[in-house]
Amino acid sequence: MNAPDKLQQLLSLTREPFPQSQKIYVPGALPGVQVPMRAIALTNGETVTVYDTSGPYTDPAADINIRQGLKPVRSEWVAARGDTESYEGRHRVALDDGGKHGEVADARIEALRAEAASLQRRPLRAKPGQNVTQMHYARQGIVTPEMEYIAIRENGKREWMREYLGDAERETRLKGNPMGARIPDVITPEFVRDEVARGRAVIPANINHPEVEPMIIGRNFLVKINANIGNSAVTSSIEEEVEKLVWSIRWGGDTVMDLSTGKNIHTTRDWIVRNSPVPIGTVPIYQALEKVGGVAEDLTWAIFRDTLIEQAEQGVDYFTIHAGVRLPFIHLTTKRRTGIVSRGGSILAKWCITHHKENFLYTHFEEICEIMKAYDVTFSLGDGLRPGSGADANDEAQFAELRTLGELTQIAWKHDVQTMIEGPGHVPMHMIQANMDEQIKHCHEAPFYTLGPLTIDIAPGYDHIASAIGAAMIGWMGTAMLCYVTPKEHLGLPDRDDVKQGIIAYKIAAHAADVAKGHPGQRARDDAMSKARFEFRWRDQFALGLDPQTAEAYHDETLPKDSSKEAHFCSMCGPKFCSMKITQDVRDYAAAKGLSEEQALADGMAQKSAEFKSVGGAFYVPVDTLVKKA
Amino acid sequence: MNAPDKLQQLLSLTREPFPQSQKIYVPGALPGVQVPMRAIALTNGETVTVYDTSGPYTDPAADINIRQGLKPVRSEWVAARGDTESYEGRHRVALDDGGKHGEVADARIEALRAEAASLQRRPLRAKPGQNVTQMHYARQGIVTPEMEYIAIRENGKREWMREYLGDAERETRLKGNPMGARIPDVITPEFVRDEVARGRAVIPANINHPEVEPMIIGRNFLVKINANIGNSAVTSSIEEEVEKLVWSIRWGGDTVMDLSTGKNIHTTRDWIVRNSPVPIGTVPIYQALEKVGGVAEDLTWAIFRDTLIEQAEQGVDYFTIHAGVRLPFIHLTTKRRTGIVSRGGSILAKWCITHHKENFLYTHFEEICEIMKAYDVTFSLGDGLRPGSGADANDEAQFAELRTLGELTQIAWKHDVQTMIEGPGHVPMHMIQANMDEQIKHCHEAPFYTLGPLTIDIAPGYDHIASAIGAAMIGWMGTAMLCYVTPKEHLGLPDRDDVKQGIIAYKIAAHAADVAKGHPGQRARDDAMSKARFEFRWRDQFALGLDPQTAEAYHDETLPKDSSKEAHFCSMCGPKFCSMKITQDVRDYAAAKGLSEEQALADGMAQKSAEFKSVGGAFYVPVDTLVKKA
Repeated sequence: MNAPDKLQQLLSLTREPFPQSQKIYVPGALPGVQVPMRAIALTNGETVTVYDTSGPYTDPAADINIRQGLKPVRSEWVAARGDTESYEGRHRVALDDGGKHGEVADARIEALRAEAASLQRRPLRAKPGQNVTQMHYARQGIVTPEMEYIAIRENGKREWMREYLGDAERETRLKGNPMGARIPDVITPEFVRDEVARGRAVIPANINHPEVEPMIIGRNFLVKINANIGNSAVTSSIEEEVEKLVWSIRWGGDTVMDLSTGKNIHTTRDWIVRNSPVPIGTVPIYQALEKVGGVAEDLTWAIFRDTLIEQAEQGVDYFTIHAGVRLPFIHLTTKRRTGIVSRGGSILAKWCITHHKENFLYTHFEEICEIMKAYDVTFSLGDGLRPGSGADANDEAQFAELRTLGELTQIAWKHDVQTMIEGPGHVPMHMIQANMDEQIKHCHEAPFYTLGPLTIDIAPGYDHIASAIGAAMIGWMGTAMLCYVTPKEHLGLPDRDDVKQGIIAYKIAAHAADVAKGHPGQRARDDAMSKARFEFRWRDQFALGLDPQTAEAYHDETLPKDSSKEAHFCSMCGPKFCSMKITQDVRDYAAAKGLSEEQALADGMAQKSAEFKSVGGAFYVPVDTLVKKA
Repeated sequence: MNAPDKLQQLLSLTREPFPQSQKIYVPGALPGVQVPMRAIALTNGETVTVYDTSGPYTDPAADINIRQGLKPVRSEWVAARGDTESYEGRHRVALDDGGKHGEVADARIEALRAEAASLQRRPLRAKPGQNVTQMHYARQGIVTPEMEYIAIRENGKREWMREYLGDAERETRLKGNPMGARIPDVITPEFVRDEVARGRAVIPANINHPEVEPMIIGRNFLVKINANIGNSAVTSSIEEEVEKLVWSIRWGGDTVMDLSTGKNIHTTRDWIVRNSPVPIGTVPIYQALEKVGGVAEDLTWAIFRDTLIEQAEQGVDYFTIHAGVRLPFIHLTTKRRTGIVSRGGSILAKWCITHHKENFLYTHFEEICEIMKAYDVTFSLGDGLRPGSGADANDEAQFAELRTLGELTQIAWKHDVQTMIEGPGHVPMHMIQANMDEQIKHCHEAPFYTLGPLTIDIAPGYDHIASAIGAAMIGWMGTAMLCYVTPKEHLGLPDRDDVKQGIIAYKIAAHAADVAKGHPGQRARDDAMSKARFEFRWRDQFALGLDPQTAEAYHDETLPKDSSKEAHFCSMCGPKFCSMKITQDVRDYAAAKGLSEEQALADGMAQKSAEFKSVGGAFYVPVDTLVKKA
């Protein structure tokens, strides 16, 4: 892509639907439940339906105006529960965007801020004495519309899978190994409720983020992935910021974390949340630190608390809270190869040792729970002491913090606050299982949310691959959400293509985990791809892939002609030696003779060999003539 | 890279050494044993030494003339054994290069062929009644120079690792899980001999490939990777063909398979073998098929046998032989989702069903052994019935063939012929262990050599990642060599960059496996990288990585200045919030006070907090000013 094209793309939203694909909406029984999916129309008449994170952006019928935000699909559900009140809310101050008290920015920036402010509704919060979390409802036995939506979404449209999952021998042979997960054949709304009630799954869905298309994170559900985005060094436009989000969910981000720092992060967050159909997570300590001029030791509970409310009112769905970075654990990191590598962890470690006091997030944890339950913000308990190298994996600092996160989970659950647990990081393959085991043991099956883990340290520039290996394995073992790593990890800020590369690598890891766990129906898309391969339906192969455009572009590098899209061979072996073609020949031959395939091979093949032989060689075309010189 | 640059690069060899790196040669006790390694000089004065597959091409002192071939390092060792004779050898005929009998090509092609022919020495073979395989020597109790060379190579220079592997707590915590492998702390020449004698490892080293730098493939040694190359559609020059080889071994290919088809494959092979420091593998049935005009059913034992001798005389080190594709197994594939996907497998299946006869490679297997032992060509028993989709994984066709490969291994070993076993292919994660278990059970620990396996089928364009996950896992479980998959798999022919992407993904998988298995010293390079990270030695991070240029280029996209290479921060967090920096601050502070780090934190931290606080903020630079706009 040349520079002007790239700029143009950055300044507009990527809205084209995927090839051969159509957005469909599956209605639920509860009012307003319309679950989006992507239906892929194959050239053989079949329709394959897949989970779709991309929101209305890939629906050409959707009328999107990012200055008004997405349609608030959940507003009526929230209102119908009658347990919330709208209120004036906290007023944005200059400091929220990194400015000085009373500071006025230049006219352009102020106009952008006004635009963002106009997006923001009057916030909602729980009425006094009420608790508005999905966990609270679940524990009351209430199946919310969010839960029904999720059940439909997780099941997908199964009708089309009959062709692929109908063979008993195959299904027995391929039966997944759930590694302790208990995944039902069909996800019912009641199952969703039960999993949320017992804390084994979370539905990140702030009452102030009605635009969200509900999704669930838990070991008995599909493995999810998170993509991180951050603001531009100099915020240029709402389009540019929203496009990062749109780009991330287009390729499969199930949630997006906004890790912006520096100036204008309040404004950027308004833009992102109002236009996001996926849950948005943040690390509030980042913004709190900006408010104290970047001096960790100047942080206070009051500033942090105010930041939580600011972000909860904006609609952030989950907060990373590093409450497990306790003062007594910090010295455990000094003999490490790479010390503390979590940014949040290091900020709090510095605060703790400077003041020689216990982490204020730990001491104020119940007060944080009070805020979380007033908006239904989900905890993502941060692993501030995660290992930053294989050498530091599974050490006492890491596991001491993990045990603390388990204690905190019990406190959060006492308040019916949804909770997930963050995990590493850098872990060699043979030490991954211990991470899952310890997490399950100490955190009572609260969903695990890991960063990779990276299995080795010597692949800078390729850490999306080094970590996709660990992510696939830990996903299979029970991790509920995988935070992506891009090729730029350890080196620099990811650009648009890096984000895509990271997401695709993690979709691979998550899908590999789903297949290995035996999530019902998850193998069907693979089978549809394999069938398309065997039948040389090239366009269907592209359409069924995680990245149709790249697959088609790669194919076209050697066989660019349109006619090749129907060719019964590919450039790798050429038409004569194509093994799939030969297999098909065997079957066709048997069919023509009215024999079963096995009979054709087992009985009297010798006498028929002459006829069979006569077809050989007829379709030979020298491969040289097909292969475009690279 | 623009087009003329690319062309220029294709026409010359990539010879520049890696950054900060120097080729060193470690002498052995036996005459002529000089083992190449790559010594990386770090900016802190340390030297890290790593395994080096790149041959003399990265040694600026090496005088290389590809029209004369590499220095035949093994010639004297072979001669000293006194069990070989040189002989006239088979004469090249037009058919060997795909021409008709007596056909004369145009002058340019004939000149290229003459150039290739002049490279070829008079071939050697075993004297009558002699057996020249490394396995034969091993079973006689003889430690060959090849074995000593390998022992030195596998150990590497361990002196530098003291800093990284000296911590008892860390080594206990990180102790590998060898999954049944028995890896000694130090590889002795006697250990190499013993492993080869019992068939648990192979040394692919044809007596007619004296240029090879000996290497070993076995579960108790480092995991190796193979890269495939093929001839150009139109052979243009010896440089272009040799450059493919040089490029593959530069990035870490331990062996290279020449999968050329069509015209000029004999000539191309002469060029490649004479200039290759790594073992070369081929699939001889490909060339045999060319000789019968691409008509599988016209193949005969006589043509195949002649092809084996032709290639053995040229110096090919291992042959893929699909002798397990037996007639009674073929019908097992007809109910598969994707039938037979191995090219060799489908050629032989077609031959079997056309003639209704048993596979001639199976019926002539002992005669093949006679050829193998006359030249020391290693068997790579092909998995012609491997699954081509997750749906077909671990089915009866696959395992019936595997059991046959086990039978054939016993026959090969009876002849003291070195043997490895090829494996899949496409296998979901939870079904990978069964592949390793069945292989070990039926093939008596003969080295396993797998293609991936790909864990899912829906990632065309990214199958190097989908398969690196499976490759890392099966490598950990005991697979000795991993055949790479490029991003173009299933779509087209890999270009230069695809080859590199595939190799790097597989170096990651192999290294992840080595670390997990606990190969002594393998973690040290990771630790050196982590230490360089922690100390902000950017240039050392690049130099220690698998792809220094890419790592540096990624870093420079956001922080391009030379001064940033010494900066104590990176573009991800900026200088203030850098968690590694904060950890270092804690340590420095403790050191300055003459306290141990733990004391500093545990005792009297409160009273010292004011001083500590005073250093905070001093090194703050707004991240905006550092980040180059993407």
